[in-house]
Amino acid sequence: MVQTADRYQVAALEALPDDVRERIVAVQEKSGFVPTVFLKLARRPDEFRAFFAYHDALMLRENSLSKGEKEMIVVATSGANGCLYCVVAHGAILRIYEKNPLIAEQVATNYRKADIPARQKAMLAFAMKVATASGTIEDADFEALRPHGFSDEDIWDIGAIAAFFALSNRMANMIAMRPNDEFYLLGRLPREKKA
Amino acid sequence: MVQTADRYQVAALEALPDDVRERIVAVQEKSGFVPTVFLKLARRPDEFRAFFAYHDALMLRENSLSKGEKEMIVVATSGANGCLYCVVAHGAILRIYEKNPLIAEQVATNYRKADIPARQKAMLAFAMKVATASGTIEDADFEALRPHGFSDEDIWDIGAIAAFFALSNRMANMIAMRPNDEFYLLGRLPREKKA
Amino acid sequence: MVQTADRYQVAALEALPDDVRERIVAVQEKSGFVPTVFLKLARRPDEFRAFFAYHDALMLRENSLSKGEKEMIVVATSGANGCLYCVVAHGAILRIYEKNPLIAEQVATNYRKADIPARQKAMLAFAMKVATASGTIEDADFEALRPHGFSDEDIWDIGAIAAFFALSNRMANMIAMRPNDEFYLLGRLPREKKA
Amino acid sequence: MVQTADRYQVAALEALPDDVRERIVAVQEKSGFVPTVFLKLARRPDEFRAFFAYHDALMLRENSLSKGEKEMIVVATSGANGCLYCVVAHGAILRIYEKNPLIAEQVATNYRKADIPARQKAMLAFAMKVATASGTIEDADFEALRPHGFSDEDIWDIGAIAAFFALSNRMANMIAMRPNDEFYLLGRLPREKKA
Amino acid sequence: MVQTADRYQVAALEALPDDVRERIVAVQEKSGFVPTVFLKLARRPDEFRAFFAYHDALMLRENSLSKGEKEMIVVATSGANGCLYCVVAHGAILRIYEKNPLIAEQVATNYRKADIPARQKAMLAFAMKVATASGTIEDADFEALRPHGFSDEDIWDIGAIAAFFALSNRMANMIAMRPNDEFYLLGRLPREKKA
Amino acid sequence: MVQTADRYQVAALEALPDDVRERIVAVQEKSGFVPTVFLKLARRPDEFRAFFAYHDALMLRENSLSKGEKEMIVVATSGANGCLYCVVAHGAILRIYEKNPLIAEQVATNYRKADIPARQKAMLAFAMKVATASGTIEDADFEALRPHGFSDEDIWDIGAIAAFFALSNRMANMIAMRPNDEFYLLGRLPREKKA
Repeated sequence: MVQTADRYQVAALEALPDDVRERIVAVQEKSGFVPTVFLKLARRPDEFRAFFAYHDALMLRENSLSKGEKEMIVVATSGANGCLYCVVAHGAILRIYEKNPLIAEQVATNYRKADIPARQKAMLAFAMKVATASGTIEDADFEALRPHGFSDEDIWDIGAIAAFFALSNRMANMIAMRPNDEFYLLGRLPREKKA
Repeated sequence: MVQTADRYQVAALEALPDDVRERIVAVQEKSGFVPTVFLKLARRPDEFRAFFAYHDALMLRENSLSKGEKEMIVVATSGANGCLYCVVAHGAILRIYEKNPLIAEQVATNYRKADIPARQKAMLAFAMKVATASGTIEDADFEALRPHGFSDEDIWDIGAIAAFFALSNRMANMIAMRPNDEFYLLGRLPREKKA
Repeated sequence: MVQTADRYQVAALEALPDDVRERIVAVQEKSGFVPTVFLKLARRPDEFRAFFAYHDALMLRENSLSKGEKEMIVVATSGANGCLYCVVAHGAILRIYEKNPLIAEQVATNYRKADIPARQKAMLAFAMKVATASGTIEDADFEALRPHGFSDEDIWDIGAIAAFFALSNRMANMIAMRPNDEFYLLGRLPREKKA
Repeated sequence: MVQTADRYQVAALEALPDDVRERIVAVQEKSGFVPTVFLKLARRPDEFRAFFAYHDALMLRENSLSKGEKEMIVVATSGANGCLYCVVAHGAILRIYEKNPLIAEQVATNYRKADIPARQKAMLAFAMKVATASGTIEDADFEALRPHGFSDEDIWDIGAIAAFFALSNRMANMIAMRPNDEFYLLGRLPREKKA
Repeated sequence: MVQTADRYQVAALEALPDDVRERIVAVQEKSGFVPTVFLKLARRPDEFRAFFAYHDALMLRENSLSKGEKEMIVVATSGANGCLYCVVAHGAILRIYEKNPLIAEQVATNYRKADIPARQKAMLAFAMKVATASGTIEDADFEALRPHGFSDEDIWDIGAIAAFFALSNRMANMIAMRPNDEFYLLGRLPREKKA
Repeated sequence: MVQTADRYQVAALEALPDDVRERIVAVQEKSGFVPTVFLKLARRPDEFRAFFAYHDALMLRENSLSKGEKEMIVVATSGANGCLYCVVAHGAILRIYEKNPLIAEQVATNYRKADIPARQKAMLAFAMKVATASGTIEDADFEALRPHGFSDEDIWDIGAIAAFFALSNRMANMIAMRPNDEFYLLGRLPREKKA
């Protein structure tokens, strides 16, 4: 198999600042492998810290969006941006959170056809507009979310996740970041157990 | 799980003409399930027959494109068209032919990042232009394929597959054809054996 | 006059399988000339047979769309795809069926400005969406056709014709198929009679 | 036949200023009918005078572009803008100047497939870029015209005609200007003679 | 500072026809400098005369659009076309007419975010559609302007200004016309007085 | 003057965590006003901290891009995204860094026409591709920057700034963030002094 070389070398773990290395080791211990994004961004510790601080502020925040819904936003907008890394890595996380082995391809390819309720389709329609035509967002876009129970704070969350992955997708595309092989199968097997 | 209803009912097997039913039964026996496209198109036997005759003429033809390469064309252009059915169904076939559990997401999301050689990237660039901007194809597009060893007949095959799935994607999108659940996992497990 | 060479040679009639040659001869006898599409596709008899079987299944089918309406779909979507062959050849057929020497340029250039009733504009709006953005078709697009009396089966026909010519346009564009000179004047002269 | 109503009434000839009416009468005498554009724009005599002064400055100017080449620019860019009036009216003039009954559909639908030499294709490629993406014109676009013998003044002419019809197409589209029926057949019959 | 050379030399004032030179001198006396567009277009006196006659017919016409509103249309559509000259030159005029030092960047960058009332946003939405997608204008676009009090004649004015600057933007882009340095600061200082 | 209400209230300074408030106060003291982005994002301290940490990591980093070049990337890509806040606020900073009162409109409207050397145009071409079509970045885009002396690390910086402002633009567009009036005039007056 030919493997398309990604751009920029991964950081050498032993040369990293302690906090950066510790985060990477923690991920390794929890997941069994280190997602490439950690090793790639670690080349620049300040950007690494800001990136994951931002990620955590949005994705770990307790709010009315479920963990799965947050990942749906990531997967749908990453598909629109042609970002292989994020589609594959977050597709895996989405399958796990939703306990649904089919959901990632559905949301990445065309969320209108996904097996999700109208609330989540409305959420993704807004996220996609933030991702692809944010200059044209208007009050009507906010109004379209109200009947589904989304508050102003929820809408901020939806848009902010789409905005953060606009950044993330562009970085991954620029440096040709290759998703770890492990992601492709995660969350696909119904009997799969996390120890 | 909410399932988005697809449009148009599937045909009742017993009401179909013999040749149509026989093809469906044969697929069922070989694959263990009937891909939805057979049951949806069978509603109109003449279109069914023409569709599969065309499909077979292109996809079963012996030529210098491998079976996997033909499926790459299907998966890449179906991704560009936002066709969930074809991405998922042909993604499964692509994984099987290439014996590569990672290839489908790669080609569907962004073939430029796929683990494929330059020859196949050039092939997909041409196929994508046929799929999305065929009116602007010019001699230079043909010339770009020559250094990779593609003959005029090969190029016809590449373009014709992209053209046929332009039809197929539009039908599937229009009728909201939902891919069978079975496709999602096919070809992902290394130990998988076809008896 | 410089004539832009089309790609791929036409088939030699005498070398063709009987059924293919017979169809071509029949067209020649009926029309007085052989439209280039027959000679170009005949290079590959299996594709030829499937192409025309599909064409006939859709275009000769008796349903609530008139022959002229079917050709309007072809001409409008072929214009959007920049397909010279189909605009010119099917423009001629459209003029003849509609007994309207003005209709082809109108529909090919901008159907919104054509001298056609609201029903046909709605039909073409749906066909154009199938042709150019099929991934975004949703229930509202179906609903927009109901007030004009289109049934689900009619809508299938509209979309399927747009889908089939998505294939046809791409083939003609790829091989640079040049329309026969005869098409340009057909159906333009009010006194014209078909014997 | 349903006729799509165009917007804005035509001017009453007797109420027009003398110079405007005289130009219209002169056209009527020369062509045998009054192209709608004269009657529509005459509603506003100052705009009428400026429009035709500009038109004449560009289209009647003696330079290295032939009359037919100027009309090719009009027809190609009007096709790209979906302007039915200009495609049909200037398509007729193009056929007459080029003594070629096939040229209008070719250039309006896809100039890349037209029976024209490389010089004219290069000319139209530049005109189309002025028409559709003028902000991205760069020195390389000028350089691409040099091998075909176009001077800086010629390039000004090409671009200025494309620019003027950017205006004209938008006016015709906005007011839904319907081309006179007479245009459709003009220049199509080889035996046609202008007295 | 590197200055990007614009294309085509400016005309020599003394070599120009009297009427053209006199207009330029008059502008010089009124404004204190000669906007480049006068010197560039003067190379071709007939086009110069037609261009400014058209400009004056639209921009000096007394109607229900204020002078500032007319300039808003110019600035918004010129921004969409990436025309630096018109954004800067007409941005200055817009600031002066509106006595608003902030308005030009707002309208040029994204009129939806500008500090203008709903009437002017509706006006600009129509103008932008004429500028960028005139072939799709339909009755609904006219209807959207009625509640804001725009008559058919007003709408003609809005569309005609957008159409004229479609021409103007394309000329300026083609010849890489550089805005005079003076424009950038005009109308920005609240105490600024015109003697 | 009608002011378009921006969405989401600004944070109350006294209710903010100390570190957030201190940063805001420091900006106030240095600039004489508080750019709205600080008050808007402070509603969510964690996102505020991550946003400005990321901003500082990229924009304050010592590397081969000048401060002005970094701001050019911001202004050009923000123009492409229709982000009024970033065009105006960073346009001001760009004028100050470059000591060039004309540069902001040039870069925001069409960097191809800006008074900048070829090196900076190449830099902006890459940044714009990251901003608008990152999925299509390929090795040739990197190669185009080499002759201008950009290293791999420089290219990371260019792309990362474009990526970060893809996030920033989307947030500002979503919440309709209005630029402070002060920004519009900053850096325009040659005699302007920073005490």
